[in-house]
Amino acid sequence: MDVLFLFRIREHQEEMLKKEFPEIHFLFDRKPDDPALETSEVIVTYGADIDENVLDRAKNLKWIMVASAGVEQMPLGRIRERGIPVTNVRGIHKTPMAETMLAHILAYRKKLGVVYEQQDRSEWNQKIRGTELLDSKALILGPGAIGSEIGRLLQAFGVRTYGCNRSGRQAEHMDEMISFGGLVDTLPEMDTVISVLPSTPETRGLLGHEHFGAMKDSALFLNFGRGDLYEEKVLIEALENGRPAAAVLDVFETEPLPADSPLWKMENVTVSPHVSSHSGRYIERSLDIFMPNLRAYLDGSIDEMENRVDPERGY
Amino acid sequence: MDVLFLFRIREHQEEMLKKEFPEIHFLFDRKPDDPALETSEVIVTYGADIDENVLDRAKNLKWIMVASAGVEQMPLGRIRERGIPVTNVRGIHKTPMAETMLAHILAYRKKLGVVYEQQDRSEWNQKIRGTELLDSKALILGPGAIGSEIGRLLQAFGVRTYGCNRSGRQAEHMDEMISFGGLVDTLPEMDTVISVLPSTPETRGLLGHEHFGAMKDSALFLNFGRGDLYEEKVLIEALENGRPAAAVLDVFETEPLPADSPLWKMENVTVSPHVSSHSGRYIERSLDIFMPNLRAYLDGSIDEMENRVDPERGY
Repeated sequence: MDVLFLFRIREHQEEMLKKEFPEIHFLFDRKPDDPALETSEVIVTYGADIDENVLDRAKNLKWIMVASAGVEQMPLGRIRERGIPVTNVRGIHKTPMAETMLAHILAYRKKLGVVYEQQDRSEWNQKIRGTELLDSKALILGPGAIGSEIGRLLQAFGVRTYGCNRSGRQAEHMDEMISFGGLVDTLPEMDTVISVLPSTPETRGLLGHEHFGAMKDSALFLNFGRGDLYEEKVLIEALENGRPAAAVLDVFETEPLPADSPLWKMENVTVSPHVSSHSGRYIERSLDIFMPNLRAYLDGSIDEMENRVDPERGY
Repeated sequence: MDVLFLFRIREHQEEMLKKEFPEIHFLFDRKPDDPALETSEVIVTYGADIDENVLDRAKNLKWIMVASAGVEQMPLGRIRERGIPVTNVRGIHKTPMAETMLAHILAYRKKLGVVYEQQDRSEWNQKIRGTELLDSKALILGPGAIGSEIGRLLQAFGVRTYGCNRSGRQAEHMDEMISFGGLVDTLPEMDTVISVLPSTPETRGLLGHEHFGAMKDSALFLNFGRGDLYEEKVLIEALENGRPAAAVLDVFETEPLPADSPLWKMENVTVSPHVSSHSGRYIERSLDIFMPNLRAYLDGSIDEMENRVDPERGY
């Protein structure tokens, strides 16, 4: 049985797979035009290289493992027609993203930017007025795997966490829950407002003037979800008006962020080039999800595979 | 009964004290030459303004509350002779210091300095190779109130914590303990090495060439204790040799750090001007310690007062 990897993994990872599954013939680091495409039962891919043409040639294909969270680039209609199960690596981003968000929140509170600037001038100046996370309040838009992880860490710092999703149903590591409709009433109390929402019809343009205007003039806003959560010009105007006080943005309407975007030069904005989910342990963690699923596949227990993607909903 | 404050507190804090203790005559924001010095039973001070002369004039003095951790500037011999109990605000620094240390550790791991520099150049570059705290190891030199708090937070990030004190006796939020003698053997495994040690005969010059040389070439070293933990030139040489990889320093041999110190200009050093313990909530927390102690004092239960300082040992 052939398992085709459309990307490279490390040699020790190849060895581990071969040792763990001696009955399988692995083909690593191949291109979609590889002849083995026609014989492979399993394809392991980042997703973007699977188009309808590739799918049609993969006559023996019975499972697609996508080593990414989004599957929107794949021909989901055709995959559904053929009844091919798809699994992804949902949840894999939670550690690097939550650690990165905490880094930015704490750096803002402790004014590390000012510390660095003073050092550049060899200036010893103790008038750095940091603030504390302890006893502050944070709103997390999208308390799923990533949002709950940031909630868990914030709670360790003594922060009261407010989760916000469409329905207001309970989520892990949230002290309180609200629905999208409750945002304007809750925002005036929040010291930190974080979005990790995906892009869906319900979230696109969710935040408008009335939401930013309801924020504290000391609030920090972070968007690590998707750039279409608001019109960027609305956010820029809000930041110019001082509500929120500052923003850390990892996602944008257009990426890469155009060189002439005013966001680059705004004193109260941190531009992060969509790197918060990056991790040196990405493939290691993908394989941690892949291997038990491969075992289930070999045992004929496809229903027990984790991280199944519904090709109808697309996630 | 007169209680003399040698510093200013906020109006609402004055009101709170008067309401809580109507039987007491509080004098706020006074200087040591105030006539009330002679009648006051209790003095609340930051410590440095109590010299032998002040002490001699305070004939009625029965308790000194020092709103600081160190009491080394006070005339402890004379205080002991008169049998005057002293209390301090030990533990008050743990939240601002632990939050600040986490800010620096995460900022280093996630390369926020690089993010900021790229933004200065309006440069979208995703080649930022951050590393993770999860599953890393941290050594905490001095796992007391502050060190345990940093241990607690690091454990929430999935860091394995190693406490190090003179005896190796167990401390809170430490997965393992070692004694000063075990340092050279343990340092090669540590990703983060933190000191919050005070300055005592045992800690002065504790770290030498052999300790820095034993560190990983990827290790981050933080000193938020006292600057005499090592000879600064030894640390500078170690950083030039790449072990540790980088340092964040809040304390120095000489403070303010002289303008010609090479530390200011070193790429792998962050100079923080001894501000990690600063907090907007300093007085609030001092009063949280003071008020129950004042109640105990009024009840004649001096032995129940918290944070008693031993004038013999000086802490």
